[in-house]
Amino acid sequence: MRVASGLEPQEGYEIGVVVDALRASSTIVTALALEAEAIVPLSSPEELKRVDGPTIGEQHGKKIDFADYGNSPTDLLRHAEEIEGETLYMVTTNGTDTILRAAEVHEEVLIGSLLNASAVASKLSGDTCFVEAGHRGMLAVEDTYTAGYIARLAGGEPADGRTRAAMEMARGLPAEEVFKGSRTGHVLEQRGRLEDVEFCARVDEFEVVPVYEDGMVVPQ
Amino acid sequence: MRVASGLEPQEGYEIGVVVDALRASSTIVTALALEAEAIVPLSSPEELKRVDGPTIGEQHGKKIDFADYGNSPTDLLRHAEEIEGETLYMVTTNGTDTILRAAEVHEEVLIGSLLNASAVASKLSGDTCFVEAGHRGMLAVEDTYTAGYIARLAGGEPADGRTRAAMEMARGLPAEEVFKGSRTGHVLEQRGRLEDVEFCARVDEFEVVPVYEDGMVVPQ
Repeated sequence: MRVASGLEPQEGYEIGVVVDALRASSTIVTALALEAEAIVPLSSPEELKRVDGPTIGEQHGKKIDFADYGNSPTDLLRHAEEIEGETLYMVTTNGTDTILRAAEVHEEVLIGSLLNASAVASKLSGDTCFVEAGHRGMLAVEDTYTAGYIARLAGGEPADGRTRAAMEMARGLPAEEVFKGSRTGHVLEQRGRLEDVEFCARVDEFEVVPVYEDGMVVPQ
Repeated sequence: MRVASGLEPQEGYEIGVVVDALRASSTIVTALALEAEAIVPLSSPEELKRVDGPTIGEQHGKKIDFADYGNSPTDLLRHAEEIEGETLYMVTTNGTDTILRAAEVHEEVLIGSLLNASAVASKLSGDTCFVEAGHRGMLAVEDTYTAGYIARLAGGEPADGRTRAAMEMARGLPAEEVFKGSRTGHVLEQRGRLEDVEFCARVDEFEVVPVYEDGMVVPQ
């Protein structure tokens, strides 16, 4: 199978894997591992304000004040009992929008993070494009790394130099150093969320594979 | 030739290339390209205070107030006439200390940056270890990238997975995105030094190869 990666979904790849490792992908994976029923990604805080149900909200790294939960896997872990069985509505700066964009191009859209790397890799049976959330249209090294990590586990053939670079990076450099040393990692550390950075750098913590279908992210 | 990379100098490598791409390496390369006679790296701001001569000083990303110049290649470009022919004394948070540590292990110590990548690569005729300044003992992606970039130009055989990863990263990902997206790049942007980040991501701007000999960095 061919694998590509980048900040945009690419035509010609059946599967899209959305990667926003710090933190939307990791938050979604954790929510479903805690047996939330579904996550509904929305595209703006205004939409989030109007929904009736539990909410996850973040803008520019900070929790939206009217949201029930932040975009934080470790916050969700502390509220595991509340989340079980719930459908959660979610907005984040980059991640939820990336899911909606990927769904316009790819037949199948999965959510990938280091937390569920092996589980996602085992589901990739067709040509796959990793769609990285990045940061304001620029590469975010933690997303490139995570895309490369999953692509390598899946045994994909890189379609371009960028993807080959990501796969080698993920093989040769330690996840936690890359995540802590990243721009996003630094911003989160400054905001007192180093715990999230360390958690998101863990590999294969969960086995759930979130898939986006008909407006909702559910466990596959 | 074998090439290694990491945060520490390694025994068994004749040449050490010190890389602190944002910004000490780039500042030194620029100073010598502007025909400064030499740079004397010191290990503390206290030492810098006692010297008699022009000084370059930075701690934690900020110019030391009593220093004549900041750790900034673009600042030096604006003072080109003052610098020509001078011996400058220099302290930075990581870079100058990394030079002194490398000199304890390697027979020959060069200073590498993207600004002089091809020039440095052309001088590497023996087994080479890239000594990355990093950030508080952690990987800094701009240094790993720069080490990989020069190693690849030199046609080195990577001695380990980390170095192979660095070389592939430098081949597949764009320098400016990696530099701007890095933790250090973000801190510099916040401090109004985006201009430095963009300048340091330029490749082969200069041909000078700084070498550390007898306590001073001079053009080879």
